Amino acid sequence: MSENTKELERSAFEKLEAALKNNDIDAFRSEFMDMHPYDQTQFFLKMDKDDRRELYHFLSPDEMSEIFQNIEVEEEDYQDILEEMNPKYAADMISSMYTDDAVDVLNELDKDHVASYLTIMDEEAADEIKELLHYEEYTAGSIMTTEFISIAANQTVRSAMYILKKEAPNAETIYYVYVVDDEKRLVGVISLRDLIISDDDTMISEIMYTRVMAVSAAEDQEQVAKKMKDYDFLAVPVVDFQRHLLGIITVDDIIDVLDEEASDDYSKLAGVSDVDTLDKNPFSAAKKRLPWLIVLLFLGMFTASLIGRFEETLSKVAILAVFIPLIGGMSGNTGTQALAVVVRGIATGDLERESKWKLLLRELGTGLITGTTCGIIVMLVVYLWQGEFFLGILVGISILASLIVATLAGALVPLLMHRLKIDPAVASGPFITTINDIISILIYFGIATAFMSKLT
Amino acid sequence: MSENTKELERSAFEKLEAALKNNDIDAFRSEFMDMHPYDQTQFFLKMDKDDRRELYHFLSPDEMSEIFQNIEVEEEDYQDILEEMNPKYAADMISSMYTDDAVDVLNELDKDHVASYLTIMDEEAADEIKELLHYEEYTAGSIMTTEFISIAANQTVRSAMYILKKEAPNAETIYYVYVVDDEKRLVGVISLRDLIISDDDTMISEIMYTRVMAVSAAEDQEQVAKKMKDYDFLAVPVVDFQRHLLGIITVDDIIDVLDEEASDDYSKLAGVSDVDTLDKNPFSAAKKRLPWLIVLLFLGMFTASLIGRFEETLSKVAILAVFIPLIGGMSGNTGTQALAVVVRGIATGDLERESKWKLLLRELGTGLITGTTCGIIVMLVVYLWQGEFFLGILVGISILASLIVATLAGALVPLLMHRLKIDPAVASGPFITTINDIISILIYFGIATAFMSKLT
Repeated sequence: MSENTKELERSAFEKLEAALKNNDIDAFRSEFMDMHPYDQTQFFLKMDKDDRRELYHFLSPDEMSEIFQNIEVEEEDYQDILEEMNPKYAADMISSMYTDDAVDVLNELDKDHVASYLTIMDEEAADEIKELLHYEEYTAGSIMTTEFISIAANQTVRSAMYILKKEAPNAETIYYVYVVDDEKRLVGVISLRDLIISDDDTMISEIMYTRVMAVSAAEDQEQVAKKMKDYDFLAVPVVDFQRHLLGIITVDDIIDVLDEEASDDYSKLAGVSDVDTLDKNPFSAAKKRLPWLIVLLFLGMFTASLIGRFEETLSKVAILAVFIPLIGGMSGNTGTQALAVVVRGIATGDLERESKWKLLLRELGTGLITGTTCGIIVMLVVYLWQGEFFLGILVGISILASLIVATLAGALVPLLMHRLKIDPAVASGPFITTINDIISILIYFGIATAFMSKLT
Repeated sequence: MSENTKELERSAFEKLEAALKNNDIDAFRSEFMDMHPYDQTQFFLKMDKDDRRELYHFLSPDEMSEIFQNIEVEEEDYQDILEEMNPKYAADMISSMYTDDAVDVLNELDKDHVASYLTIMDEEAADEIKELLHYEEYTAGSIMTTEFISIAANQTVRSAMYILKKEAPNAETIYYVYVVDDEKRLVGVISLRDLIISDDDTMISEIMYTRVMAVSAAEDQEQVAKKMKDYDFLAVPVVDFQRHLLGIITVDDIIDVLDEEASDDYSKLAGVSDVDTLDKNPFSAAKKRLPWLIVLLFLGMFTASLIGRFEETLSKVAILAVFIPLIGGMSGNTGTQALAVVVRGIATGDLERESKWKLLLRELGTGLITGTTCGIIVMLVVYLWQGEFFLGILVGISILASLIVATLAGALVPLLMHRLKIDPAVASGPFITTINDIISILIYFGIATAFMSKLT
């Protein structure tokens, strides 16, 4: 199935390339305009610069906007592609995009370029875009679009359908119609489904749903995404504090938000700045990983200097060194587990319903259970295998204590960061691991030094 | 905003509870039926058993099904809740659910219960459900629903709209209408948007889109989700190998799939079996974490026994022990980074477009760059700070070698697992970390033992 699709795609792409080379605009358009915008975009991204310059002669700015709102390239590449076009063509194309997508593109450009495109394009589109450019990144306002359909409550289904037909070509979704009062305040919503099954003469006010869930323009996009996911909405209205309808957010944008946030949490747990853009070469890959590695390197050297203080203990009982990676590794792992549970809990909002003390108490209990289990196993193995009774007890107790502290630390750090309004996912896996390394080594050598006499 | 919503919710919930206590069915229904199904579900989940038994008298099986298809509880709880109901009521409720949701619920029950509910419910619904129960978990077939609208190509927009109005109350989405031939094979699709803006007398065959993207029933749900995300579809048709239309998958189910898969990858990177269900007590939390911890514990003891072989080296140069956590930690971190990049690349499909050798070569290059940088930093710090020239070189070279090997291992392991058709995310962070621990310690002590004479 999927192989077939790829085959088809390849032959379509070859036809298009041939048409471009022969400057055959009709052959090109008859094939190209029949493709889904996503496939058009895939073709666009595979073209070289010269072919793209040719393409801009074959497509209107409006047709080109369908492609451009789908592309996802590196920040600097947006500017490069726009500069291949005539500035007026580029401005027209941007003004043809849905406002939310236009704003996304402009946000990638530097201020001078934004200003110049806004000056060239038609005033109405420029004004709408300017309004949306004000909203802070990652808020509902920054991802909403202004292409929605609104109607008044005191009209019939028939007249509502008439408005809908007229506005359908420009609206981002026609599947929800929003009902506003004289002052443009949101008072109701009606789905196209309900419009269709209702009688033509029914008044909108009779069938509209008045308990509309709306989000504020300043609300965090992740919260909005969570609401839409819970309520299975295809779109949600965005309002200001007087409940004036400002725009709508559609489900396709929400899918992108959910995807971004998930990949962001994942990246941070792994200690890479961004796992999702594929690296072109080792240098771009190293650039994303080195900052984390260098910070962790210095934390690791701090750990080394801590162990250095116990050099005397170590030179007397060299076997102590053997268990350093085991104890450090176990507390790192258990800390990462607790961290992941709390970070996800904060992200999904599940933790909001629970008291923080209860959570910490539960993590303490979890650490006690896992610590006791692992401690006893280690003690038995060291004792039975190596015949070392005191060493077994020492390592076992160190594991017990380390796991309790590490589990608590793993839960506490993201909670504290959340309280301090820092994204808790920044307390990533590697950091928690390294911090727990330090704590566990202090515990291990602390206990070892205290019981020195038993070991030698 | 959000505080306000919570306030409102609380007062609505109190009203509902009072109505239930007073056995006031009218007061209850007038409040309850006006709530969104998601909120109804939230209320349902907060009720105790006795109140729920009362509720089943207040709501029809059909009304109850709206609530039930939204609940997400532990496996065993589904059965418990169903058993509170009269069996006939439960069966009617299940048959009122959209088929995909009914199947989801039945999949949580044991076989005897499934059989008994299917026997009680009306035959048509039971047959539809039985068909879907055959599909393997995580395939397109398992998440599709059969409540779609299909029409023939040789009819007008007017007659299509007539069918749509008639079927709207039962269809899961009416925003796409599928066009099938006499043998029920999928030949086209038309959106409600296009139907609405078209003239009533237009023939469907003239305006339908014939290059319909469909997925096969056996296709992996993650692949389907990726396609819907890329193409911004609200629904996608599912077909068999003769392109017979079997069902559709709607965007709300796809959001759940994306969420599940992301949280699954995240859980595995952290080494917890499931981060998303909130733990009720320390025992359930420990149960999810201990299996991983115990495996890692034994791997860690293997590492310890490896270091044990170098006890002679260690007892001569105790300072060697000081750098064990640093070298092990660094290679663990860099391995996790490479792992995360490859696992996400496989999940998003980005890696499909690239040769595996090119990827490994790039990771080798990345390891070389990060290894050289970190190696030089460590060497300088050890030399300048501790005045130990040979020790600095030893630790630096060990870091260089470990980082190269660890980066390659981090990339290679998930690639191999993917080739062997094992979910690459299972090669989770903690495993890669522990394996890299072992490799790096072998490198470190190997080099140290070879250069012994320079160190003592």
